[in-house]
Amino acid sequence: MSNYLEWDFLTDFVEKAFSAYGVPEDDVKICADVLLQSDKKGIESHGVNRFKPIYIDRIKDGVQNPVTDFEIIRETPTTAVVDGHDGMGQVIAHHSMKVAIEKAKKYGMGMVAVRNSTHYGIAGYHTDMAADAGCIGMSGTNARPSIAPTFGVENKLGTNPLTVSFPTDEPFHFSLDCATSIIQRGKIELYAREGKDTPAGTVIGRDGSALTDSNQILHDLQTGEAALAPLGGIGEELSGYKGYGYATIVEVLSAALQQGSFLSMLTGIGENGEKTKFHLGHFFIAIDTEAFMGLDSFKKTAGDIMRELRSSQKAPGAERIYTAGEKEYLIWQEREKTGLPVNESVQKELIAIRDDAGLVDFRFPFED
Amino acid sequence: MSNYLEWDFLTDFVEKAFSAYGVPEDDVKICADVLLQSDKKGIESHGVNRFKPIYIDRIKDGVQNPVTDFEIIRETPTTAVVDGHDGMGQVIAHHSMKVAIEKAKKYGMGMVAVRNSTHYGIAGYHTDMAADAGCIGMSGTNARPSIAPTFGVENKLGTNPLTVSFPTDEPFHFSLDCATSIIQRGKIELYAREGKDTPAGTVIGRDGSALTDSNQILHDLQTGEAALAPLGGIGEELSGYKGYGYATIVEVLSAALQQGSFLSMLTGIGENGEKTKFHLGHFFIAIDTEAFMGLDSFKKTAGDIMRELRSSQKAPGAERIYTAGEKEYLIWQEREKTGLPVNESVQKELIAIRDDAGLVDFRFPFED
Repeated sequence: MSNYLEWDFLTDFVEKAFSAYGVPEDDVKICADVLLQSDKKGIESHGVNRFKPIYIDRIKDGVQNPVTDFEIIRETPTTAVVDGHDGMGQVIAHHSMKVAIEKAKKYGMGMVAVRNSTHYGIAGYHTDMAADAGCIGMSGTNARPSIAPTFGVENKLGTNPLTVSFPTDEPFHFSLDCATSIIQRGKIELYAREGKDTPAGTVIGRDGSALTDSNQILHDLQTGEAALAPLGGIGEELSGYKGYGYATIVEVLSAALQQGSFLSMLTGIGENGEKTKFHLGHFFIAIDTEAFMGLDSFKKTAGDIMRELRSSQKAPGAERIYTAGEKEYLIWQEREKTGLPVNESVQKELIAIRDDAGLVDFRFPFED
Repeated sequence: MSNYLEWDFLTDFVEKAFSAYGVPEDDVKICADVLLQSDKKGIESHGVNRFKPIYIDRIKDGVQNPVTDFEIIRETPTTAVVDGHDGMGQVIAHHSMKVAIEKAKKYGMGMVAVRNSTHYGIAGYHTDMAADAGCIGMSGTNARPSIAPTFGVENKLGTNPLTVSFPTDEPFHFSLDCATSIIQRGKIELYAREGKDTPAGTVIGRDGSALTDSNQILHDLQTGEAALAPLGGIGEELSGYKGYGYATIVEVLSAALQQGSFLSMLTGIGENGEKTKFHLGHFFIAIDTEAFMGLDSFKKTAGDIMRELRSSQKAPGAERIYTAGEKEYLIWQEREKTGLPVNESVQKELIAIRDDAGLVDFRFPFED
């Protein structure tokens, strides 16, 4: 019995399952690729662990539509505004970044602002698309209220990733894909599983205190009695206002350009406690390096910067200095050979999907 | 005897002094406005306290040229690469953002990448120019090596601000102008003057420890025995890799697009300890809100987001929740009436410039 799944097998299963719930053929490829890219990079918080709760269950609950109606409602040479009509976020994001890249290739830069979308997977997938095309890619999205503003205790801003990728002359892109909070729920779940406290300063209670009891935090985040601290922490001493500021920028770029929803509109819960559509907003920017001094010289200089950073003096006890995207590349080097390790909770969800979708041809190795 | 200087008087003095050291008439206006905008907003680290050491002394030392040769070396509809030929950073930045805004007004977006520049003042001045024009403005610059990468102890990256402004329907712009380190040297100088320790986690020593002795830190930063921690702190526990990542993005956008200098090339000190030109790089982005759903609706939604954040539940003991740019606006409301308070150290520098430049008509109130 193995808890490892081979990539071809897993891809086939995820595609057929998306298909079974009504996602059209072309879109299935995109949805599966975004989902599994996360697992390939070791970002387990956004991989198959989310397949059932964030995608399949939401389609079944009618909170998002399996068929994506991608509508460009306004367009200029370099910009577009898209209404996603509550379709598949990964598909909306993929098409949007494609439009931004096409505009960048023609005019030097491109930007697409999206409204009425749903969870778009890892932001880095989309910014990496731009890097693949020789562009600098930027993206962000708003999300359910989680972060409290500096001097506040109420969850207001989403974890609002501010994500950037660009190519270098190394075998992997620079890719910084991170929330503007210090940590996210997934990390606290990990601390709880390991029986560890959550580091002080990452979560704030309604009384303004730094919460550390991981199980209590998971409960309080659910009820809104706790909120995540922005990057930089609670208050101003360690410059929490900077993370708060970046989270706010992402919120505005995800709502004001496209006249979409924001902050407390994004709870996903209606007046009577019912599940409602999220109406998320995103933005996608592509900047063509060829419109400046050229791709090759850009890649060389970017690579030189990475190498100088990595070869600088390490802290005593530190094994190495990484640059963004490097750890994910190293994990993929390993996982390409081994396949994906899947824990028991995810195993159960995959079996549940298989049975519910009637995909009788699939039998998982961990069932043997 | 007053230590307050009236704005008209101070502006006149700064302009005549820049002029006396060879800055041409039109450029003098820009240089003075950038410098004093900082004092008007209460960002004293970048105001007249820097007039002598960062601008006048550097002109006198031949490290930067008072006459700016602003050369566009490559251009497309939306982008331009500028060589600043070691002229006045404020002037180079002003012209660059103007070009970016013009391109944005025509094509929706504009970006200018600059090499061989010098200190450009507060980044927020330039991004506010974009906001004044109804655009989203973004800017960053590299700088002398100060920040150590995560798991490193060597000062490598500049304090590399990642700055964003945009208009709202309120009387002031949203304007987040901040370094990607937690704090900067100016703040540590303040702690030292107040006899306070520097918060643990903001500065790292070569032995990997968190330094807190403010006077020792100021010495060690000078010798390179200490380095600033990125936003998020030392190590990964509070996500220091995110601030490190953002600092790296700014370094790359300030060097790779324009084929300019970076990291250890930017010490300003030559092989034999002599002062050398800095060859800084910057970038400027303007995104026209009119290319999306329009300026008015953008301002309204952005304002709504600010108001919802400020009216959310405050931490016990917190007087109010601010949004970026608000504190600076409130300070200007006050200072517009009072003029600028100038401390003794700056008073001496202003007198020294006056005497050196032979501006005999100026007599400061603090001399009475």
